[in-house]
Amino acid sequence: LLGSNCERGGAEREAGTTLRPSGLITLTTDFGGKDWFVGTMKGVVLGINPAVVVVDVTHEIPSGDVRAGAFALASSCSYFPRGTVHLAVVDPGVGSARKAIVVRTANYLFVGPNNGVLGGAVAKETIREIFSLENPAYSLQPISRTFHGRDVFAPAAAHLSRGLNPQKLGPRLPDLVRLSYPHPQTSGPHIQGEILYVDRFGNAITNIGQDFVPNLGGRTPSLAVCRRCRAPVKAFYQAVVSGRPVAVIGSNGTLEIAVNNGNASEKFGLRRGDPVILRASRR
Amino acid sequence: LLGSNCERGGAEREAGTTLRPSGLITLTTDFGGKDWFVGTMKGVVLGINPAVVVVDVTHEIPSGDVRAGAFALASSCSYFPRGTVHLAVVDPGVGSARKAIVVRTANYLFVGPNNGVLGGAVAKETIREIFSLENPAYSLQPISRTFHGRDVFAPAAAHLSRGLNPQKLGPRLPDLVRLSYPHPQTSGPHIQGEILYVDRFGNAITNIGQDFVPNLGGRTPSLAVCRRCRAPVKAFYQAVVSGRPVAVIGSNGTLEIAVNNGNASEKFGLRRGDPVILRASRR
Amino acid sequence: LLGSNCERGGAEREAGTTLRPSGLITLTTDFGGKDWFVGTMKGVVLGINPAVVVVDVTHEIPSGDVRAGAFALASSCSYFPRGTVHLAVVDPGVGSARKAIVVRTANYLFVGPNNGVLGGAVAKETIREIFSLENPAYSLQPISRTFHGRDVFAPAAAHLSRGLNPQKLGPRLPDLVRLSYPHPQTSGPHIQGEILYVDRFGNAITNIGQDFVPNLGGRTPSLAVCRRCRAPVKAFYQAVVSGRPVAVIGSNGTLEIAVNNGNASEKFGLRRGDPVILRASRR
Repeated sequence: LLGSNCERGGAEREAGTTLRPSGLITLTTDFGGKDWFVGTMKGVVLGINPAVVVVDVTHEIPSGDVRAGAFALASSCSYFPRGTVHLAVVDPGVGSARKAIVVRTANYLFVGPNNGVLGGAVAKETIREIFSLENPAYSLQPISRTFHGRDVFAPAAAHLSRGLNPQKLGPRLPDLVRLSYPHPQTSGPHIQGEILYVDRFGNAITNIGQDFVPNLGGRTPSLAVCRRCRAPVKAFYQAVVSGRPVAVIGSNGTLEIAVNNGNASEKFGLRRGDPVILRASRR
Repeated sequence: LLGSNCERGGAEREAGTTLRPSGLITLTTDFGGKDWFVGTMKGVVLGINPAVVVVDVTHEIPSGDVRAGAFALASSCSYFPRGTVHLAVVDPGVGSARKAIVVRTANYLFVGPNNGVLGGAVAKETIREIFSLENPAYSLQPISRTFHGRDVFAPAAAHLSRGLNPQKLGPRLPDLVRLSYPHPQTSGPHIQGEILYVDRFGNAITNIGQDFVPNLGGRTPSLAVCRRCRAPVKAFYQAVVSGRPVAVIGSNGTLEIAVNNGNASEKFGLRRGDPVILRASRR
Repeated sequence: LLGSNCERGGAEREAGTTLRPSGLITLTTDFGGKDWFVGTMKGVVLGINPAVVVVDVTHEIPSGDVRAGAFALASSCSYFPRGTVHLAVVDPGVGSARKAIVVRTANYLFVGPNNGVLGGAVAKETIREIFSLENPAYSLQPISRTFHGRDVFAPAAAHLSRGLNPQKLGPRLPDLVRLSYPHPQTSGPHIQGEILYVDRFGNAITNIGQDFVPNLGGRTPSLAVCRRCRAPVKAFYQAVVSGRPVAVIGSNGTLEIAVNNGNASEKFGLRRGDPVILRASRR
């Protein structure tokens, strides 16, 4: 459902069952930049694998917002080389009974809490195996009750980036927690979808994929309506005058509502979950 | 005009016309840290050149503020080794007719949209050649209409960091878009300049270079006046008591107005474009 | 006093007096992400040592807040490999008479202004020697009066990361500036401590170490009281219902006050310096 996922050409890219480390670990967290949390995780990683390159996807996921973390990971993971370890830590249940897991797919290793944060990214991946991170040999001891990013996830990701077989990390699990995303509904010339994410520019990214959008750039102009915003569908932001709303196919491959040189979310009060109606324009 | 530029000793440093890659790419964008945009660009870069080191200059340029992006790039680029690829993406016209370009100078390769964001950095550089990024072999296909940072600029920068001849990227252009910066005006014992940039400390960086400042640290104390702020010219911030304004020659080599242990921009409402008068003090 | 310090197993790890570079430099500053300051420092570092890996601890220390910078560095430094160069620049006195220093300890090299920012990290380290950074051969010339991060500290750290003997950097100093931290006071079944730091989640980290906390997880439930917050001591955040306060042993090894799925600092107005009483619960 998400506009992008982590299997762009995955079938072709896979040869056999091996997954050679790319030498990269990505980080997606809600730890923010204010404190020492992310830096500390990198210290742990580099102490275990000095040759690895750690790439920040983002650390500004709103505190505890698993859904936003899942969206960010799903939107970015496929742009990394095969064999990359993707680590996502948005983990309000840290220290409780929720499990820490690694998911090996056809192209990547995903590490994080089993609370759905990995769900978007693996949605269209071919999952090979899932393990629970329980082997104390691959964590910092003693494990704190509040910072598994440092004590559990960073060590696991670092060992995996060195080629450790994931089954060494703990017992096999049959499945992982997934998040459900709404599908757009088609009704004649109307499509009803909803906003999945609002980005830093205030662009509202919807779940209406480009295959749903009728006549994009063609003869029948279409209109996206959300709250009091009425945005014509165009090919790029500056196709409307400055300050005006516009709906474009964004970089995730889905419709997004923007304001040229402005902030659509602020101007129209758009938020995640808001319904969006896409329809043929009256004129 | 900018206090610093990217040709510190450039003439001496250049030997012939080759420009050997330094192994570094810098990034200056308005993508922010909230989303996955920057991380995704790095994934693309590292997929093409796994050995390159990517350095963030900043991603917090105000959304669409080409002038601020140009200032940040111009203030930092010369501190990187010769052969570095400087990529700047502040690109409100993404998807429109504006071109994406690479500028080869005596010391660096600059990549970005042709909207002025590269203008400050190349202002005192010796420009060798300019090309338009049009060769589809060096971009991600299909190119989205909203995220050329990922689909056009990151791949181009990555290939250049591997030593690709820039002329492979597209047709030659005669010149690039530049931004005009105001020059300070001298009138007797007064100099009138203006604020070019306000930094995170609230320091207001002006266009009055150190060669303009009379008697700095000498016998005639001078005063910088901007809005209701009257700041004596001193050698460093703590030369005035805490909470008081002070004007110093900042790290760009130009006069800046600060408040010791405080925020001059907030205290006095200083903003980019405000006129600044530098004059001999009355006492 | 700080919950963590930089000598985790330091005695055992040290063999002789050599300190082989780890190939890492960490950065802890108040430069923020808005401008080009951090990127510029990295350019200088990589120009001197192209092979070094630079890890950001944080750049969001509040402007000039030496105490917060010291806390962040002390909380993270021990998680990096032995031989890492830790550079901390929170430096409101830049350009004044305060010295720039390097401290060689049993495990690390610490570089920064001599204003206390290194004090927390070296508190339980075995200090070997301290030098003042005065040798112009290892700085950028001319040295600006406002940006020693770029002109003094970054070059020194880069040279040290290549194995330069610290005594080459300048004259030896007998000691460094330290910060004093309050000790918790025990009075019968009560312990009075205080808040040392509030993190991005709004968790209030205290100076009450886990060795002080009576019966943690045992039969006598305990209560942490701070302003109008009454937080039961539990093993992890989700041991209380969503929105309720909870006191846990945090990742620094000291008691912290949190709100499950919320922000304790905002909810209860908790701030650094606030007293915290830990006591046996009435029930």
